[in-house]
Order: sequence, then C-alpha cells, then structure tokens
Amino acid sequence: MTLRIVATGGTFDKHYNELTGVLGFSDSHLPAVIARTRMTVPVELDVLPLLDSLDMQDADRARVLAACQRAQENAIVIIHGTDTMRETAAVLGAANLGKTIVLTGAMIPYEIANSDALFNLGVAVGVAQVLPAGVYVAMNGQVFPWDNVQKNKTAGVFQTL
Amino acid sequence: MTLRIVATGGTFDKHYNELTGVLGFSDSHLPAVIARTRMTVPVELDVLPLLDSLDMQDADRARVLAACQRAQENAIVIIHGTDTMRETAAVLGAANLGKTIVLTGAMIPYEIANSDALFNLGVAVGVAQVLPAGVYVAMNGQVFPWDNVQKNKTAGVFQTL
Amino acid sequence: MTLRIVATGGTFDKHYNELTGVLGFSDSHLPAVIARTRMTVPVELDVLPLLDSLDMQDADRARVLAACQRAQENAIVIIHGTDTMRETAAVLGAANLGKTIVLTGAMIPYEIANSDALFNLGVAVGVAQVLPAGVYVAMNGQVFPWDNVQKNKTAGVFQTL
Amino acid sequence: MTLRIVATGGTFDKHYNELTGVLGFSDSHLPAVIARTRMTVPVELDVLPLLDSLDMQDADRARVLAACQRAQENAIVIIHGTDTMRETAAVLGAANLGKTIVLTGAMIPYEIANSDALFNLGVAVGVAQVLPAGVYVAMNGQVFPWDNVQKNKTAGVFQTL
Repeated sequence: MTLRIVATGGTFDKHYNELTGVLGFSDSHLPAVIARTRMTVPVELDVLPLLDSLDMQDADRARVLAACQRAQENAIVIIHGTDTMRETAAVLGAANLGKTIVLTGAMIPYEIANSDALFNLGVAVGVAQVLPAGVYVAMNGQVFPWDNVQKNKTAGVFQTL
Repeated sequence: MTLRIVATGGTFDKHYNELTGVLGFSDSHLPAVIARTRMTVPVELDVLPLLDSLDMQDADRARVLAACQRAQENAIVIIHGTDTMRETAAVLGAANLGKTIVLTGAMIPYEIANSDALFNLGVAVGVAQVLPAGVYVAMNGQVFPWDNVQKNKTAGVFQTL
Repeated sequence: MTLRIVATGGTFDKHYNELTGVLGFSDSHLPAVIARTRMTVPVELDVLPLLDSLDMQDADRARVLAACQRAQENAIVIIHGTDTMRETAAVLGAANLGKTIVLTGAMIPYEIANSDALFNLGVAVGVAQVLPAGVYVAMNGQVFPWDNVQKNKTAGVFQTL
Repeated sequence: MTLRIVATGGTFDKHYNELTGVLGFSDSHLPAVIARTRMTVPVELDVLPLLDSLDMQDADRARVLAACQRAQENAIVIIHGTDTMRETAAVLGAANLGKTIVLTGAMIPYEIANSDALFNLGVAVGVAQVLPAGVYVAMNGQVFPWDNVQKNKTAGVFQTL
C-alpha cells in the first residue's frame, strides 16, 4: 500500500499573514503535518495551487482530477476546502477512476488552536487504505459516499442529503 | 453507527504535573479531544483507570475486555499505551467478540507539541466504522491485525512481525 | 502592587469563527491567558468592546482613557491592536494620569501557532510594575515611550521615529 | 541596549523523548523561542549544558557566573530550573557584577500545553532592560530581588521570604 496526498488548500492549510492580517495561503503545512503523523506507509505529496474552495473553478477541479488520474497509488487523500468539497467529489466520482479517493479538510485551520485538521486527516488516511474503490468525503469523524453528502453551513457539519 | 471510546491511559493521555514535575495521569483528555474532533457520530466514552501500559496487569486487561463485552456498540476504539498494546489486543482478539475493535495510542502525549495523538485517534475512529469485526492496532497511519503487529522500540514505530 | 489589564481587542484577541471563516472577536482570551501566566500579583481585568484597532474611533479611545482614569491601580497593561496603538498611546500620554500604562498587542493572534501574544504580555506586565509613571508601548521585546514609537508596517515591527 | 540570554535547562527547556518516554533535554528550544518573540533588540544566546536544576552542582553555578562575567551585555536573562533558581541567583548576587541579571524559568515546559514559559521570558526580557544593575528572579509575573525570594513547592509559586 502506498498513499498519495493531494493538497489543494482550503481552511485546513490556511496561514495567517502577520504583515497583512489576512488568513490566506503560503507554503502548505502538509510536509510538516505528514512528519508529525509518523506515518510509515509510504506517502507521496502533491501540492496543487492552494485555494479557498469558494474560489475553485472548473479548471481547478480538472487539475485535481488529473492529479488523481496520473497517481500510481490506489489510495488518495485530498485536502480540500469544505464549502465546495462536495462539488469536487462529484467530479471525481463521475470519473470512475477505480481508486479509493477520500476528500477531507478542516473547520479550523491546522495552525489555529483547537483545529480538527489532524484528526480529519487521520480519518481520511485510515479509511483510504481499507475502503473499496470509490470517492468519499471524511468529515466530522464520518465517511460519506460522494453522492450523499452536503455541508450544513448553519451547523458547520457534514451530513447526508 | 455508534462508537464507543475506551480510555485506558498510555502516553496519549499523560499529563504534566507542574508541582511534581512528573508526567503521569490526571483527568482524561478524551472529553476535550472528542469535542475538538467535532464528531457527529454518537460517541460513548468509558474512562477506565488510566495506566502506563507497562504497569498493566492481567486484571487490567480483563477490565478492558469487560468494557468491550458490555458495550452496546459494534465499533470500539481503545486508547492504550504503546508498550503493551499488542498484549491487550491479543486478549481481545482471542475473545472473539464479533465487534470491530481498534486500539490506538500515541508516541507523544496529546498535550505535548507535535503529538501524533489526534491523528492516531482519527485513523482509529475512521477504520473502526468500516472494517469487519475483528481486533486491530492503528498506529503510524497503518492498520494491523492484532496477531501481526509489534512495536519496534528502537525505531519507535509499529510494524508487522 | 496591583495590576489592571484592559482588553480592547486587536490581533492579540482575535478568534477564528469556524462557521463564517472570519477572524473576528468573540469572548476575550484574557481570562484564560491570565490563568495560564500563573501571575500571583493581584490582577483586575477590564474587557472593553473588542475592536480591530483600525476601527477605533475617538469615542473608543476615550473609553480606554476613562478605564485608565477610574482604575485604582497604578500599573495598567492595555491589550490593543497594533495598527493604531500609537494613537491611543498618544491620547493616554497627553492625559498625564500619573500611572504606569503599557500598551501591548500581538502580530499573531494568541490562538494561532507561533503567536507572540504571551511573550508581549509578559514584557508589558513586567515593565508596568517597575517603570516610572508614564505611557509606554511594549512590542518586539522593547519598551518605547508613547511619543517616540511607530509601527513599521512593511517590516511588521515597532521602532522609534 | 543588547541582551544576552543564557540557557541552562530547567523545566522551561525540557523535551519529551518519544523513544524513551522521558522528559529530559535535547537541543535547546531557545533559538525557536527567540525567533517567535520577534524581538528586535539584538540578542546573543549562550547555551550552557542543559540541566535539571536539582542536578546543578557548584561547578555548574560557577559556569553560569562565568557566562555572566564574560558577557559584553549589561542586560542578561538566565533560563533556569525553578527548584534551585534561588541558589544560583545567590551566587550571582554575591558576585556583584554591576549588570542587570534576571533569572526565569517555567512551571510547565515550553513544549507542553498551557506553558508559562513564553510569558515568563517576556517578563524577564522586559525588566532586564529597565531595572538597575542587580540580580533578580522573575516568576509568576513578579520580580523578586535575589535575596528575598523562595519557591513555595507546595503551591508551585515564587514568593518573598
């Protein structure tokens, strides 16, 4: 088993810029996060352009799809913004790649106190290795199939349709 | 799906006592950790006596087994010290409970910088919900069957026999 | 010696709202921060409306001045946004209150990784107890008189004029 | 003004060794801590052998004294274990070096949640620049003269004699 992690930005990877006071993107936290997890399964990391998922366009989703298509690995975890995680999952689900692809993200950035990022990554890494091929969303400690998940923005949680 | 988490101590749950300078046990961190994960799957928490797993005796393992036996839930995550995780897993595996039981822990306590605790919990919570009945150890981002796992104490990682 | 801490918001006290994704204000972190410092000098805390200092108007500065005037304590630390810390310091300096007033803040919010907030508070608490009456700004490990300090916004540091 | 920081170990600088499970010493955290403070006052760092202050012998205190004697700076902060901070302060106080020397430390290691280390360093750095020559202990947000301070081990706080 080998694992590929694809970083696309989202709340998980936001960084506070102390000069501008803006929460945006700089270098991905994923290399440090992966080291911290002490994972022994071989991991390949793809850092795509880091975006707020509200800013993701069709071309950006096509880039995520391409990263999954060219991956040698059968287990893929995608770090993604929560607001349009479902839309990207749908693009990947429709593509029927024959791989186990799990999208996850965070409600609180990794670098902010009380973040759920590391936990969510754990859920995604775990289930990506044991679920059958398909596209899934892992948030709130649950795993959802790509075609039966939505973000409840009022409650800030993912749930079935 | 409902999940039961059984806290037994171990490095994951150690607490620094500022009066004595000793890393030992106080209240479990699990209630705060569970809140932080924003899990929406219903979770029941059993806090057993918190022990360094090197101090675990047969009676302590019997208590863990009893907690699994009386649990209503079919998915159980056990927070355990790493040094004898394998021994407790063997007791549970031999009991053949027909439930999915995943043991996990941490190399660095939850309250210490760079801890793997939250990640490991994520892996365990994720796979406990999707693996078939059986007893597993989830460490280093991998899932091991209870009868094919050991801690490599020199390297500080879990591996197959 | 008794100490008064006046919270007015600023980067120090910003909070990430996970529902909106906005770094704004909620309850002040100061009660938790003060507990964490293990200060034994008696501390009184005034939580004024929490504001980004770019949003501070004359009326807001008047409120800070009033808090200093009515304080029984001769040592006062004010938690303030960095962008207009100098302007509030000037209002307090001109008022000539005969107390030792130290303004401080943070370049990174207290709840974000690598924050300077706790260090800056330490500097301010320390010097507020030993400097003669006057108004000072404590940032970057230095103490500046209120009438000889500016924020270099390009470098993100405080310096003399 | 230039500042010298002398690291001697103590709880402040303890590091959790994940292979042995022991809180001991490895590389000093001080370089990272100093970067985090965003101090603009020039700082020189002396990392002496890192010790639990209960293990400090006369020769170790003589080494701290020598570091203070050879320092070009008139403001010196010493990071020290709390249990014998007073003893080292007495050695330095008796030497009458004509410099402002402030000893500080922590009740909780820098790398453990809820640590007071960064705050204490702030207090020490602040007052080291404004107090007259002499030897002081800065803990619990207070500054004590070297000959009127003791650690109350039951309460875990510093107080006058």
